[in-house]
Amino acid sequence: MKSFRLSDIAKEIDGVLYGQDIEVKGVASLKSAKEGDITFLFVSSYLEEAVKSPASAFVVIEGLQVSGKSYIVVKNGSLAQAKLLKLFYPEEEKHASLSDKSTISKTAVIQDKVTVMDFAFIGENTTVGEGTVVYPFVYIGNNVKIGRNVKILPHVVLMDDTEVGDNVILYPGSVIGSDGFGYAFDGVQYVKIPQVGKVVIEDNVEIGANTTIDRAAMDETRVAAGTKIDNQVMVGHNVNIGKNCVFAAQVGIAGSCNIGNYVVMGGKVGLKDHINIGDGVQIGGMSGVINDVEKGKKIVGIPAISYIKWLKVQSIIEKLPELKKELDKLSNLVKKEEHK
Amino acid sequence: MKSFRLSDIAKEIDGVLYGQDIEVKGVASLKSAKEGDITFLFVSSYLEEAVKSPASAFVVIEGLQVSGKSYIVVKNGSLAQAKLLKLFYPEEEKHASLSDKSTISKTAVIQDKVTVMDFAFIGENTTVGEGTVVYPFVYIGNNVKIGRNVKILPHVVLMDDTEVGDNVILYPGSVIGSDGFGYAFDGVQYVKIPQVGKVVIEDNVEIGANTTIDRAAMDETRVAAGTKIDNQVMVGHNVNIGKNCVFAAQVGIAGSCNIGNYVVMGGKVGLKDHINIGDGVQIGGMSGVINDVEKGKKIVGIPAISYIKWLKVQSIIEKLPELKKELDKLSNLVKKEEHK
Amino acid sequence: MKSFRLSDIAKEIDGVLYGQDIEVKGVASLKSAKEGDITFLFVSSYLEEAVKSPASAFVVIEGLQVSGKSYIVVKNGSLAQAKLLKLFYPEEEKHASLSDKSTISKTAVIQDKVTVMDFAFIGENTTVGEGTVVYPFVYIGNNVKIGRNVKILPHVVLMDDTEVGDNVILYPGSVIGSDGFGYAFDGVQYVKIPQVGKVVIEDNVEIGANTTIDRAAMDETRVAAGTKIDNQVMVGHNVNIGKNCVFAAQVGIAGSCNIGNYVVMGGKVGLKDHINIGDGVQIGGMSGVINDVEKGKKIVGIPAISYIKWLKVQSIIEKLPELKKELDKLSNLVKKEEHK
Repeated sequence: MKSFRLSDIAKEIDGVLYGQDIEVKGVASLKSAKEGDITFLFVSSYLEEAVKSPASAFVVIEGLQVSGKSYIVVKNGSLAQAKLLKLFYPEEEKHASLSDKSTISKTAVIQDKVTVMDFAFIGENTTVGEGTVVYPFVYIGNNVKIGRNVKILPHVVLMDDTEVGDNVILYPGSVIGSDGFGYAFDGVQYVKIPQVGKVVIEDNVEIGANTTIDRAAMDETRVAAGTKIDNQVMVGHNVNIGKNCVFAAQVGIAGSCNIGNYVVMGGKVGLKDHINIGDGVQIGGMSGVINDVEKGKKIVGIPAISYIKWLKVQSIIEKLPELKKELDKLSNLVKKEEHK
Repeated sequence: MKSFRLSDIAKEIDGVLYGQDIEVKGVASLKSAKEGDITFLFVSSYLEEAVKSPASAFVVIEGLQVSGKSYIVVKNGSLAQAKLLKLFYPEEEKHASLSDKSTISKTAVIQDKVTVMDFAFIGENTTVGEGTVVYPFVYIGNNVKIGRNVKILPHVVLMDDTEVGDNVILYPGSVIGSDGFGYAFDGVQYVKIPQVGKVVIEDNVEIGANTTIDRAAMDETRVAAGTKIDNQVMVGHNVNIGKNCVFAAQVGIAGSCNIGNYVVMGGKVGLKDHINIGDGVQIGGMSGVINDVEKGKKIVGIPAISYIKWLKVQSIIEKLPELKKELDKLSNLVKKEEHK
Repeated sequence: MKSFRLSDIAKEIDGVLYGQDIEVKGVASLKSAKEGDITFLFVSSYLEEAVKSPASAFVVIEGLQVSGKSYIVVKNGSLAQAKLLKLFYPEEEKHASLSDKSTISKTAVIQDKVTVMDFAFIGENTTVGEGTVVYPFVYIGNNVKIGRNVKILPHVVLMDDTEVGDNVILYPGSVIGSDGFGYAFDGVQYVKIPQVGKVVIEDNVEIGANTTIDRAAMDETRVAAGTKIDNQVMVGHNVNIGKNCVFAAQVGIAGSCNIGNYVVMGGKVGLKDHINIGDGVQIGGMSGVINDVEKGKKIVGIPAISYIKWLKVQSIIEKLPELKKELDKLSNLVKKEEHK
């Protein structure tokens, strides 16, 4: 690990340095930081811990300070953390090379500076853009288009016709372009409806480990630029996901949903098929969405309702035993009254 | 893509042609269809869009028509769609061959016209039936029996002793025959109970991407003929699933459940262990089933209750704040009355 | 399969033999057992079936007996079953060997008696302990430390820096050490926060098929000794899981949760991030946990509340339609009274 002057770090992370401009040799969490390290203080409740820490310097958010130590004040803590970690842990450069122990179809077009590691498979008429890295056990089918600087981690599957933009990261075990779940019932049994559409993943998207994104029945399933999807998420056929969305783990989105930009979903959220979700909607973890949601709304519950309403309803649900007692008491009183 | 006469298409999809018997060059969705294409109109709300479409012909369901265009009337829209798409997108024929870059055990029995692609692994005493295709990175263990015309897509894992029928499709990343989750607690720690049963997948079954079906503790876990299982579904040890069931994504079925024929489960449904589900039961998405369900019932909720009852209960839950106000008001009135 | 004397079996499984000391040739479930087999009777409701069974001997728990047959009485049925099955189905010995068709980095340290099968990949500076078996299509990154007698089944992914203890079993398709889901929002888009921590899996842990355990942002994600995790479970970054926990399938644990020892979670349980769960807590299937839970508590529901309270609340929820009627009736009566 390299060392950096605090003044240089401050410049890099858009912060203002207070205290001595010393050199730090590493970055670590507050609980693990040693002398010579820079660490983070974003919540005042950890102030005491920070003061006791052997760390030599701190990144703090506006309003906080660590007296007696050097600290850099920033507006956006997470962003500063991202930049600082990138400084100390730069992306490892791969020596571009195409392994003899992989299979690369003769009709595949592999651009400059591509790395294909052992035991990768690249099919017919597939294009791989400059700087892309293909890890072992990656399966890329036929007619796949992959952009530049894409990271395709071990065991990723890209089925035929999939399109992937630039700077995408596909985490291990994700499956893109498997058949959508579509069957016709003929009165006796289910007959497979051929799934002849494709999946399009735009620039700067990330797809989590063991997540599955199905190809469209016809046309396309799309994940627009900048959207980040966590592990074990399921995206059905013909779903259209907007830009800069964030979906936590184990979310499930049924076929033909149409999701706006900047939509946030907590873990395990489920969407019925053909649901429309407006821009900026926030859906609480474990919610089940069965109706369209207007832009900007915050919803939660199974079935999901507005967050404000859910809070009210939920507070009463937990008091139902008391309510029932009250009702029974009233009922008795009134009946007594009646019999007078 | 080939072109077809509408009269031939009508015959193929069991429909009646109205209008000119022209030739169409492609099939596409309503929103993407170009001149020369045939497309679909199954819902009257899209009629206006259909009339404006440049498509040259339509498949419509009974009761609909597209004046001024050729159209084929069918009874079962989805089934017609399945057949029409199959006509335009016939299953790609693989040139049966066994890759030198795969590992096929000497004791494995590989029948005629089998395709084993690069980087596939086939273990001892395993049988692979005629016409079956094994994609890259498929792991097939020992003593596995695989039927005819099975499609085993990339990264599928078939552990020892698994049996797979004819015309089965195993989607990428599915894991069949991993150990069931069984432990004995010895007072201090959990001791693994060896899982010595197997998994049997019958004819015409499809298993979705990254779905897991565990081997039985003893005896077998079974998925009967014609059942279709979506992505990321979990089937525990010793579960018995009937014929022609349809389970949507992220369903979880705990050990030893017994599920009838023609059972439908929405996404993310969970079943407690040892539950019996009768034929034809329908379970709404995200339901949690903790009791046996009689045949033909429609249930929903956590815990799941009859759909009719759930509708009633749910409509009241959302009005709980108003109910509480009413109760409080009554309570005050009655108390006032008391004090008179 | 070998045969064993009942007296030897009784010794092995800590039981007391009643009846003749015969030899049995196999172990089977009650419904499948044939003459010559030993089987199990742990529930009195199966007594009749047991009496009719052709099985030659039984393992029964205290309080049960099968008259006219030999039977071994044990205190802990599951534990006896585990031991008996291990006797009849001993772990297959692998002939330690390193396949030429695998890739083992020159800087990897492979200890004695290790098996590396075809198409496995082992990265730089990685250590694999004695007796460990690496199946086909396993990806092991750089700087990974793997203990002794570990079973790494097909398609497992161990990303860089992961540490795995002794006697661990990693089931097919599990992904350990993929990046945590951490992004900073810069006002326009999400910027990846480098995930520079690691995953530590302690001794005797088992990780289910297609389960994902993410590396920490900084520091570590840890699964302590003896914990058993089922299939399709998601463990977020910086989660700390105690000893001897049992998590059923499809559980999801968001980042930075801190979970005690002997915690049991049913299927599909979800935990919000930064939740603390005390020792011995039991969480019912499909629960959503949004608050810390004290040790020893039994909770259930979305959001999860105490099991006792949930039973009360739930019994009233199902009677809400009747309650509403009662309330309406009262309301009418009181209003009539008012107008008198």
